[in-house]
Amino acid sequence: MLLLSEKDIKKSLSMEEAINVIEEAFLKYANNDFVMPARTFSKVKDEDTLLIMPCFVDDCIGLKVVTSYPSNNTTNNPVTQGLVLLNNRETGDPLAIINGSVLTAIKTAAVSGVAMRFFMKEAETVGLIGTGLQGMYQLLAAVSSTSVKTIYIFNRSSEKTEKFIQEFRTISKSDIEIIPVLDKTELVRNSQIIITTTTSVSPVLPEISGLYENKLIVGVGSYKSNMRELPQTLFEDLDYYYIDSEQGKKECGDIIDPLKRGWVKENQIVLLSDLLKGGLKAPQNTNPIVFKTVSMALFDAYIGNYVFKKAKELGIGQEFKL
Amino acid sequence: MLLLSEKDIKKSLSMEEAINVIEEAFLKYANNDFVMPARTFSKVKDEDTLLIMPCFVDDCIGLKVVTSYPSNNTTNNPVTQGLVLLNNRETGDPLAIINGSVLTAIKTAAVSGVAMRFFMKEAETVGLIGTGLQGMYQLLAAVSSTSVKTIYIFNRSSEKTEKFIQEFRTISKSDIEIIPVLDKTELVRNSQIIITTTTSVSPVLPEISGLYENKLIVGVGSYKSNMRELPQTLFEDLDYYYIDSEQGKKECGDIIDPLKRGWVKENQIVLLSDLLKGGLKAPQNTNPIVFKTVSMALFDAYIGNYVFKKAKELGIGQEFKL
Repeated sequence: MLLLSEKDIKKSLSMEEAINVIEEAFLKYANNDFVMPARTFSKVKDEDTLLIMPCFVDDCIGLKVVTSYPSNNTTNNPVTQGLVLLNNRETGDPLAIINGSVLTAIKTAAVSGVAMRFFMKEAETVGLIGTGLQGMYQLLAAVSSTSVKTIYIFNRSSEKTEKFIQEFRTISKSDIEIIPVLDKTELVRNSQIIITTTTSVSPVLPEISGLYENKLIVGVGSYKSNMRELPQTLFEDLDYYYIDSEQGKKECGDIIDPLKRGWVKENQIVLLSDLLKGGLKAPQNTNPIVFKTVSMALFDAYIGNYVFKKAKELGIGQEFKL
Repeated sequence: MLLLSEKDIKKSLSMEEAINVIEEAFLKYANNDFVMPARTFSKVKDEDTLLIMPCFVDDCIGLKVVTSYPSNNTTNNPVTQGLVLLNNRETGDPLAIINGSVLTAIKTAAVSGVAMRFFMKEAETVGLIGTGLQGMYQLLAAVSSTSVKTIYIFNRSSEKTEKFIQEFRTISKSDIEIIPVLDKTELVRNSQIIITTTTSVSPVLPEISGLYENKLIVGVGSYKSNMRELPQTLFEDLDYYYIDSEQGKKECGDIIDPLKRGWVKENQIVLLSDLLKGGLKAPQNTNPIVFKTVSMALFDAYIGNYVFKKAKELGIGQEFKL
């Protein structure tokens, strides 16, 4: 069995590669070429949960096991921790154990990368609301999928902001300009792409009509049914609402709520995978484009299988005789 | 994170210890001192399935992930393969990955060991039907929980029998007499305890009235709803039908069928955990005693947590920085 740590994953996989791999996974999804049993959420205590997400795709059984512990926000422990397990689909053989926290972060960013590349790869300005670990990876995905030259980040704590910027420079090895702003409206005005990665229960973007013209909004956070990041205004001039997984209609407040309130109609919700499969072009008018990702086990299994094979080929990782 | 292989488990845990640990787990069950979310079975192909069994007990989240591939019967791959994962219940931290196949084999045998010790620890003769890996571990449990001096095993292939006996001698380091028999009635007549560990869909014990007087029957195999090991005769003079888990009434053919056909009444089915908790004595009349184990995630989590702590204490296992 092969063990892949955070370092091993980073050595095996570039963000650009991850975006290409996830684009392949989108096509698997569009072609229904996978089996994805229901994922289960088990309450451990209060809001702390154990998530179990299986998927069978190609030659592997992928299983993501993640603990999501909001109670860790008050300690030094990460909120999300976990593993991705791979087994041979043909024989059941355990093949690999992969750091699930890092793989999840890279995968989630790569999903956004696919969307940014598809909808607005010429964008030169990107705004970010939510400067946690996921925000960092989202910026790396923006670097790999667009022509970004200036990044605007929203953050109240200047100390945290400084640390975030330094870390981004180290990881991305880029000298892209990063400008912290304290006003979200300014951030949106200056950015062609706006990414939100918060766990907010109420909209984190301004309710200003016309503000979002010609822009791409990528909603990454607020993945639960009681959470919301996107404002009502956004839906006023929307042609379509792009999402990555059918499951989102049942699980995600940013999709459930707009549907329930009639801001968006069921037939306006379009799977990005179907656009990719159809070889379609991104819309060309000035209406805002909104993409929301809720992700799914298929992505984790697919990219896990890819990293496993790549690492094996490169001789990366630690062997363990079970 | 600590990784525990087959060898590490065997170094950390004796069968006698395993029996004591599982007896503790029975008391946890009786006291309802655990949380056990529903286990899920996902079909991979035909009869090949992925089993996911979570349980929260004491300070750990235990998760057993096992593939059960009957299709491997035609190849050299084991039918059951898997892992037990442990996370810190308080923080979500991944703590350990343990060889799930070996831990399952030991645990299943230890469950029988608890029953044999409780119902008939003075037994000097044990008969076994089903000489696979599980049969081997059952005999080791019998050695640790009874006064067994002679073992009768039923097997048609003398070559396989010879190999099985040699292996038992090596592992058990005992010179207990083992006698292969070709007649099941003879096996039952000669044995005070009879253990069945098959995947049969029809009874593997003879339908002879009075044959089971004064005997303890331990049913370990045929864990699915369409499987059956135990004969109707067995239920004729039964006081109680002892089982290890409520879940068995829904999942196990050897419990479902006798209930449905009226051979046994719902109120005759008794949890072994309740006897242990109540400090009760084993029945003293001559009627057969029947114990059927279907097991549950609680046992895996509990013994997994024990092995993890013991191995850590002894410095056994391989550390892995995730």
